[in-house]
Amino acid sequence: MADLVLTTFDWVPEMPRGFVRDLRVRWALEEAGLPYRIASTPSRSKSAKHFMHQPFGQVPWLTDGEISLFESGAILLHLGQRSTTLMSADPRGRSEAMQWLFAALNSVEMASLPWSMAMFFGDTGDTPAWKRLDDFLKARLKHLEPVLAKRQWLAGTFSIADILMADVLRLVDRFDGLADYPACRNYVARALARPAFAKAHADQMAHFAASDRATAPM
Amino acid sequence: MADLVLTTFDWVPEMPRGFVRDLRVRWALEEAGLPYRIASTPSRSKSAKHFMHQPFGQVPWLTDGEISLFESGAILLHLGQRSTTLMSADPRGRSEAMQWLFAALNSVEMASLPWSMAMFFGDTGDTPAWKRLDDFLKARLKHLEPVLAKRQWLAGTFSIADILMADVLRLVDRFDGLADYPACRNYVARALARPAFAKAHADQMAHFAASDRATAPM
Repeated sequence: MADLVLTTFDWVPEMPRGFVRDLRVRWALEEAGLPYRIASTPSRSKSAKHFMHQPFGQVPWLTDGEISLFESGAILLHLGQRSTTLMSADPRGRSEAMQWLFAALNSVEMASLPWSMAMFFGDTGDTPAWKRLDDFLKARLKHLEPVLAKRQWLAGTFSIADILMADVLRLVDRFDGLADYPACRNYVARALARPAFAKAHADQMAHFAASDRATAPM
Repeated sequence: MADLVLTTFDWVPEMPRGFVRDLRVRWALEEAGLPYRIASTPSRSKSAKHFMHQPFGQVPWLTDGEISLFESGAILLHLGQRSTTLMSADPRGRSEAMQWLFAALNSVEMASLPWSMAMFFGDTGDTPAWKRLDDFLKARLKHLEPVLAKRQWLAGTFSIADILMADVLRLVDRFDGLADYPACRNYVARALARPAFAKAHADQMAHFAASDRATAPM
């Protein structure tokens, strides 16, 4: 039996499929070649056990023996400490990966998630509020662009920082937000071309498709 | 000479004073009793050196000998690995601190920062866009409230996770967003009562006040 158990929802609507955050963890596990299994938790009636593992009622969480971890960033850092495929063993490479992992979440996704929500819900009219969200994201991409124009991966070699940054940017790309940032767009394409991403993505799609079949008669 | 050098802006306008993110790092350094010194970088004309240390042109960054780190989350985790005052040495306590540190940034601040921006700029009219941002934050606080009602600190003992969470929530409190969440509000008060916070806050205020005096004749 695998030590590592990754829990995600049993079912989600069509739209977020391929973007649920267990994908980040699947991707890291596939890159590292660590054995794991997938468990499901109901998305339509959240249990007390769910909130014990994930206090905000979201997914994913990972159990590793006695340890249970939520937050995709924390999980990836935990896995990075287990595998040098995911994070360099050298202190400088490690600190590079660590700062870019946080930058993906707290500098870029902090701006891109509200932007993507507004795009999704159509809150994008000619209002100061929308302009503010759009400028917030552009201020980040403007500075990320020259960084990604000069390097293949954020921390020297491919790392957990790239998994998070590419996953964050790919949602922006879905709403065509990278059109003016070719280095960002090329970086996303480069990351998504990795076999571990393809496997993680296909597995997530298959997981939710299977739950459609299981609940079809309802 | 101190090994640890924390760089922040030389000057910021009145409004963000007391909230610039070097405060998080000052607070952690004061809790741990680690020796450090403060360096300044111009906020009104950003140098190439600035972007080398902080690619988004923000602050703070920390140098620790050969290592230079940006992102307050990455810096706090780095310091947490140097001091058991900031993070338990026990693997379970460590993973608790790690997941809550990411939760502060990626679950709570992800919702609270766009909310605070909207509050600050007055983008809070009766619009679907504002309601969406407000609901996003409330969805997080609703789940954080029972967690904080049951514990003094997020990871058993006080840790870097509390520094980040309290700092994130204190900006929400500034715009009176914690009125319906007494456990969150009490938690912020508890954290801010720590002498290390008071010292960090006073030092940041003094730092910017000194730059006012230095540039007064301009």
